[in-house]
Amino acid sequence: MMDGETDMYMQYQNSFDIKEQISHSKIAILPIGAVEAHGPHLPLGTDNLLAERVSEKLAERVNGLVLPTLPYGQVWSLRNFPGSITVSNDSLIRFIVDIGKSLSKQGFTTFAMVNGHLGNGTALKEAARVLYETCPNLQVFYFFYPGMNKAAAEVRETVSAHAAYFHACEIETSYMLYLAPEHVDMDKAITDIPDIPMHADATPTPWEEFTETAVLGDAKLATKEKGKYIIDIALDNMATMVKNATAEI
Amino acid sequence: MMDGETDMYMQYQNSFDIKEQISHSKIAILPIGAVEAHGPHLPLGTDNLLAERVSEKLAERVNGLVLPTLPYGQVWSLRNFPGSITVSNDSLIRFIVDIGKSLSKQGFTTFAMVNGHLGNGTALKEAARVLYETCPNLQVFYFFYPGMNKAAAEVRETVSAHAAYFHACEIETSYMLYLAPEHVDMDKAITDIPDIPMHADATPTPWEEFTETAVLGDAKLATKEKGKYIIDIALDNMATMVKNATAEI
Amino acid sequence: MMDGETDMYMQYQNSFDIKEQISHSKIAILPIGAVEAHGPHLPLGTDNLLAERVSEKLAERVNGLVLPTLPYGQVWSLRNFPGSITVSNDSLIRFIVDIGKSLSKQGFTTFAMVNGHLGNGTALKEAARVLYETCPNLQVFYFFYPGMNKAAAEVRETVSAHAAYFHACEIETSYMLYLAPEHVDMDKAITDIPDIPMHADATPTPWEEFTETAVLGDAKLATKEKGKYIIDIALDNMATMVKNATAEI
Amino acid sequence: MMDGETDMYMQYQNSFDIKEQISHSKIAILPIGAVEAHGPHLPLGTDNLLAERVSEKLAERVNGLVLPTLPYGQVWSLRNFPGSITVSNDSLIRFIVDIGKSLSKQGFTTFAMVNGHLGNGTALKEAARVLYETCPNLQVFYFFYPGMNKAAAEVRETVSAHAAYFHACEIETSYMLYLAPEHVDMDKAITDIPDIPMHADATPTPWEEFTETAVLGDAKLATKEKGKYIIDIALDNMATMVKNATAEI
Amino acid sequence: MMDGETDMYMQYQNSFDIKEQISHSKIAILPIGAVEAHGPHLPLGTDNLLAERVSEKLAERVNGLVLPTLPYGQVWSLRNFPGSITVSNDSLIRFIVDIGKSLSKQGFTTFAMVNGHLGNGTALKEAARVLYETCPNLQVFYFFYPGMNKAAAEVRETVSAHAAYFHACEIETSYMLYLAPEHVDMDKAITDIPDIPMHADATPTPWEEFTETAVLGDAKLATKEKGKYIIDIALDNMATMVKNATAEI
Amino acid sequence: MMDGETDMYMQYQNSFDIKEQISHSKIAILPIGAVEAHGPHLPLGTDNLLAERVSEKLAERVNGLVLPTLPYGQVWSLRNFPGSITVSNDSLIRFIVDIGKSLSKQGFTTFAMVNGHLGNGTALKEAARVLYETCPNLQVFYFFYPGMNKAAAEVRETVSAHAAYFHACEIETSYMLYLAPEHVDMDKAITDIPDIPMHADATPTPWEEFTETAVLGDAKLATKEKGKYIIDIALDNMATMVKNATAEI
Repeated sequence: MMDGETDMYMQYQNSFDIKEQISHSKIAILPIGAVEAHGPHLPLGTDNLLAERVSEKLAERVNGLVLPTLPYGQVWSLRNFPGSITVSNDSLIRFIVDIGKSLSKQGFTTFAMVNGHLGNGTALKEAARVLYETCPNLQVFYFFYPGMNKAAAEVRETVSAHAAYFHACEIETSYMLYLAPEHVDMDKAITDIPDIPMHADATPTPWEEFTETAVLGDAKLATKEKGKYIIDIALDNMATMVKNATAEI
Repeated sequence: MMDGETDMYMQYQNSFDIKEQISHSKIAILPIGAVEAHGPHLPLGTDNLLAERVSEKLAERVNGLVLPTLPYGQVWSLRNFPGSITVSNDSLIRFIVDIGKSLSKQGFTTFAMVNGHLGNGTALKEAARVLYETCPNLQVFYFFYPGMNKAAAEVRETVSAHAAYFHACEIETSYMLYLAPEHVDMDKAITDIPDIPMHADATPTPWEEFTETAVLGDAKLATKEKGKYIIDIALDNMATMVKNATAEI
Repeated sequence: MMDGETDMYMQYQNSFDIKEQISHSKIAILPIGAVEAHGPHLPLGTDNLLAERVSEKLAERVNGLVLPTLPYGQVWSLRNFPGSITVSNDSLIRFIVDIGKSLSKQGFTTFAMVNGHLGNGTALKEAARVLYETCPNLQVFYFFYPGMNKAAAEVRETVSAHAAYFHACEIETSYMLYLAPEHVDMDKAITDIPDIPMHADATPTPWEEFTETAVLGDAKLATKEKGKYIIDIALDNMATMVKNATAEI
Repeated sequence: MMDGETDMYMQYQNSFDIKEQISHSKIAILPIGAVEAHGPHLPLGTDNLLAERVSEKLAERVNGLVLPTLPYGQVWSLRNFPGSITVSNDSLIRFIVDIGKSLSKQGFTTFAMVNGHLGNGTALKEAARVLYETCPNLQVFYFFYPGMNKAAAEVRETVSAHAAYFHACEIETSYMLYLAPEHVDMDKAITDIPDIPMHADATPTPWEEFTETAVLGDAKLATKEKGKYIIDIALDNMATMVKNATAEI
Repeated sequence: MMDGETDMYMQYQNSFDIKEQISHSKIAILPIGAVEAHGPHLPLGTDNLLAERVSEKLAERVNGLVLPTLPYGQVWSLRNFPGSITVSNDSLIRFIVDIGKSLSKQGFTTFAMVNGHLGNGTALKEAARVLYETCPNLQVFYFFYPGMNKAAAEVRETVSAHAAYFHACEIETSYMLYLAPEHVDMDKAITDIPDIPMHADATPTPWEEFTETAVLGDAKLATKEKGKYIIDIALDNMATMVKNATAEI
Repeated sequence: MMDGETDMYMQYQNSFDIKEQISHSKIAILPIGAVEAHGPHLPLGTDNLLAERVSEKLAERVNGLVLPTLPYGQVWSLRNFPGSITVSNDSLIRFIVDIGKSLSKQGFTTFAMVNGHLGNGTALKEAARVLYETCPNLQVFYFFYPGMNKAAAEVRETVSAHAAYFHACEIETSYMLYLAPEHVDMDKAITDIPDIPMHADATPTPWEEFTETAVLGDAKLATKEKGKYIIDIALDNMATMVKNATAEI
């Protein structure tokens, strides 16, 4: 284990050193993902792996501390697929608010959640608003690849299956090829572009209604380069926002 | 990465394989720890590391699947020490109940929580009781080194600072030397046996009232052998209970 | 009062007639809006008026019953603007779930929420998911102008200030000119296109940070025709979805 | 639309004007009713209509602003009658507390709830007590026709079916004939005086146990004059209390 | 201790005998009161004593079992008087619902709450409604001296200070002289008839606003005979209702 | 009734006297027990009786006021035994927190809960922690026979059936013989030492799984002397802790 790697991870440091370190860097980064079906070529923990690796890269850029990954999220849409585990928005909100309050008491002034799972978005935003009221000295971010929509549009070869969702597809698989290639099995990658009905945005619609694989696109077109292109833009955006927030304080 | 290691971890498998695997092994193992001060020689994530490594060993014995670690716990007593993060009992209970319900729906019949942090005990027990009512087909365990009191008494060279608590001391440091030695810095190990007041069991008492280091004992006396002796007994006990439960079903 | 108008509104009918009517039409339509600042040219109740008028038109198309408008919503972003009133997501969810349960007990099989306020989206979706579990015979919709993004792009003369938000602008003012022109004062319409910072999507950002008027665009460009074009498409979409749902049952 | 009418209604004003107006009048009036069976001659929205019309008259007397009607209430006793919709006390309390907090932040100092449905009484009183603690600068009223018992006794020709309840009877129908005659169908008015069992005050007793019509009395005896007599006394009482409260501040 | 006395009290029996006894009598009686200021001549526990003694007499009449007294209640109005203790409606509801569920599981079919404190009324009614849904085989009563208004009017020599409240006055002191005379100090009884403002029924009004003693009437006029007259009527009513309920099952 | 006895009990005093008394003694003592099966020789209310009698003795030593007994507790393990009544941890926590807040407002600075039922321990500890945050001027104790483990070991003639539990056995029956002998029927005392399985500490285990009597030991060996020995030590410990806390303030 390299020293540099270790220093970044909060849980591998001891209580005496961390005190000193917080006095220098008041930025805590929390990777949040989920255990969720991601097709035949990506593991259940895809969102955790992505959140974790992005967090590490963000920590390098802003000199932040990476907290241990919260590996469970809100997985309503895919909860009936094999291996998926879901927690409710309410449970997730409370859990994150508690973590945020602790960070604030410990002296952190920035709490950046790096989210790898779209379904967590509602809970993270709500938790951030609760902390906005209760911990006014803590700037809370809920990042989900900021700027990715524009960047993905520039590199993707297939159109997106849905305006908001992307899942185990050309894009997400590219992220994995860049960030966690050892967990991708491209031999099993498939093309499965579902016809998502309009009512999926207007009534509760479990995804088994329109996909058997949980893949929303053409995973075969994924490349490490596409992933790097989008992720680096997202990282630039995150780093800029965190630095601006820190500068303001 | 060895195949064997990978197979054990639920989040590294894909949704198609896990379906097959659950049909063979219905035992899910959840490591739960905390981010908490553990003196100068042990990292903040000590309880997470221990829970994780014990879970792996238990999974080998009972052919179980290891879920990703839940790395945040209830850390009331040490919450004011540098680096500690705490979540409330209520938040923890809800979170675990949600996970348990998902596991039950996925077909698991045993949900074994391997707890590395005493402070989580109240929440895990309560969550197990909620699941006892709501998921009658799921057997829920909340393990905290079963049988360790007797086993530790046999090997320890100093008396325990408290009837229930042990922390960053001869015993816990021995666990780490056995299970995660790469995260122990024995050069920094200290002897700090506090005089815990009687009222600590009868009124809310933050630990800063009686210790400055969060060490409750003589960490210098820790050895890998002591750790192995106790942990193996605890593993025997856990494996026996899980197997008995599985046999009954 | 015209008979036709009266028959559509649930609260203007008596208990004896409604029993008969529910036996024929099992579609309940709930307008939901908010009291919220909408610039100098639109009233605080804009979202209520829009939800109400759209609901009436939808009722005509699907032979539904219009419930009395729920005129309070989640107005976090604009809560500090004069006249805004906000209720929490949690309160809104509970309230709507209760209404939905009553409708299900009364024999309705479709509960269509016509939402006029984007900020309500999170709560309505969550409420619909709760009802999905608790009232399996009730199909719940949370409509927010379905299809409007594409339709608006076709008619708008200015680019949108934000990918998701539109507010008191060319589009929403057009809706009002079509549906409630008596409440629009075009003499006071302004052009105020704010520069919404990127972090508005990643950290709690009250709108007073980037706008003084609560107008996000060029309200002067609004026309009744633009409004009609988009609203009619949205109505087509809503009617189609409701009819499909009804046909399935 | 008359100017005077418009000015009174908060939701028909814009954000710029309301700021000025609140600086002059800090009295917000919230009509609260219910959707509930009211016999063959009165509409389901009777309590909403009454609350609304009384609120308008009160606003004239005290120069207050009328908020949009909250048209859903706690309808436990009649929830099984056709057309009734009920929300729980708990949901209602939270909703009203949120509204009250917003009003307080907006600068209002009096929050007068004009209640048209007896079943809401418990929730409104509790909400007022919560606001008493959390918003000490806000005087909260929960009015339910103050003084009506004495006034009704003076004009009624039949005895009351119950010490506390009156429903769709001589009295409430008289209110409607005074305040919303266009929604009364006196041709369908009936005489139906139930024998309410003593246990109705001591154990949960849905009203279908003792009435088929939801009428508790002789609706045929209703007159506009009786309604006016009682309502005007109630309005005097409300206006006096609001003015006294305002004077104190 | 007389045998008869002991048999009535559930908590003085053992687990083996109670099983037999429940098979004969399925009526559980719960006295509920409060710790609350009751003037200079009555103790803080007046409502507990009254609830307890009435419960005993009711148990004799209907062959019921008396549960141990729940001696804490909702005391909002008098909470600022010396010695008062209050619990919230919410806490009280949950507590009673839990007790009711246990009684239902134990085989009881009637759960009669004998309430000695008016302020508990809201919570007891709500708890009864919750149990109505969750324990359909349990008939729940919330008794507060049924029929006392009429009976008290027949014997009282002073008019009531308020339509609903009576407190430490001619009436309640009479109850105590009949049921718990050893706790009354008539030498300290006073006449203190407050002028209760009309707004006390329409806005949160702590009683210190209109009384310094917490006495609402002329305690000097209390007699044992008045108390006996009213209490016996209330007991007749309670016994009748309980017997009717039992007969129906 | 002796004067001394009366003065100690808060609920037998009036509001005027209590004000004076609180100014002298700011120590409130709350007995908490349960209604729970205790074998054939002890009553269901054993834990209430013990808590009450210990509280009286403690009050004498520290000049405290005894509140009325809260006679319901968390009885999960024995809830299926005849006569047991259980309330949830959550309900119990809220109830006690409310009482504590009232005591703090009334001027008390010490709130000593004397617990007679082990199952209440979790809730009392949690409630104390909530009060620690919300009422910083109130010192809260949750006493469960402090020091009894060591003391019991010195006098017991049989080994304990379990490291933490003792129930209706040699020890608890001894307590009763000392404190409430009139409620013990030694003729029915039995010897019933169950074999408690190891999993009882690691998975929800209702006690009917290992005992039919709810007795965990040899009740025949109980003596008043053993009870007095242990109880007096526990009282010494409680009194010392309360006095120390009072001295610090």
